[in-house]
Amino acid sequence: MQVVNLAEKFAQFSDYYNPRIIGELNGQQIKAAKVKGDFIWHHHENEDELFLVVKGKLTMDFRDKTVDIHPGEFIIVPRGVEHRPRADEETEMLLFEPDSTLNTGNTVNELTRDKLEKI
Amino acid sequence: MQVVNLAEKFAQFSDYYNPRIIGELNGQQIKAAKVKGDFIWHHHENEDELFLVVKGKLTMDFRDKTVDIHPGEFIIVPRGVEHRPRADEETEMLLFEPDSTLNTGNTVNELTRDKLEKI
Repeated sequence: MQVVNLAEKFAQFSDYYNPRIIGELNGQQIKAAKVKGDFIWHHHENEDELFLVVKGKLTMDFRDKTVDIHPGEFIIVPRGVEHRPRADEETEMLLFEPDSTLNTGNTVNELTRDKLEKI
Repeated sequence: MQVVNLAEKFAQFSDYYNPRIIGELNGQQIKAAKVKGDFIWHHHENEDELFLVVKGKLTMDFRDKTVDIHPGEFIIVPRGVEHRPRADEETEMLLFEPDSTLNTGNTVNELTRDKLEKI
């Protein structure tokens, strides 16, 4: 039962779209991710996904709209909803989602990270 | 599917130890709470609880130690572990926990809030 400092966690890695697990509770995980550039379109069959931005700006494309999420803001993407995260600048964010969640959702490709590191 | 701004949510209420629901996903809730002063000793039988501090300083007493949680830090209190939140100054925090979680855990008294407002 330790205090987790977000800045210390983000300082431990630098690669994009490769979330680290920084907390686990109730079958859910807290992940820290750095993102820059475009991710891929995907959805999650069984998981709702929360994105809380800490630094930078996250842009989330949906099929019918695009929203920007700034530091101190979050968005919940319900299961089944296609989305594409992207960021013009380096962006730090937290993810809160079930431990079954695969980063690329229904798609498996070179961006898939199925063995996330715990830090 | 809207962007939630934490500062806007915290601006909507001023009472202490009365969390508001600001997000729901996967049977879990994101709550915003302002705290100041001492809460009560309690534990949760079936829920792990995450406290993420946004402003101020949260102090968490356990039976064998006390820890301070500062802005940009979180702690996960596992189910069954007795704890007492307190804060010397007004403190803003997020809670991530199952929607079954009662703020006073195994105890019901005048501090219990069993119908949380959604904002």
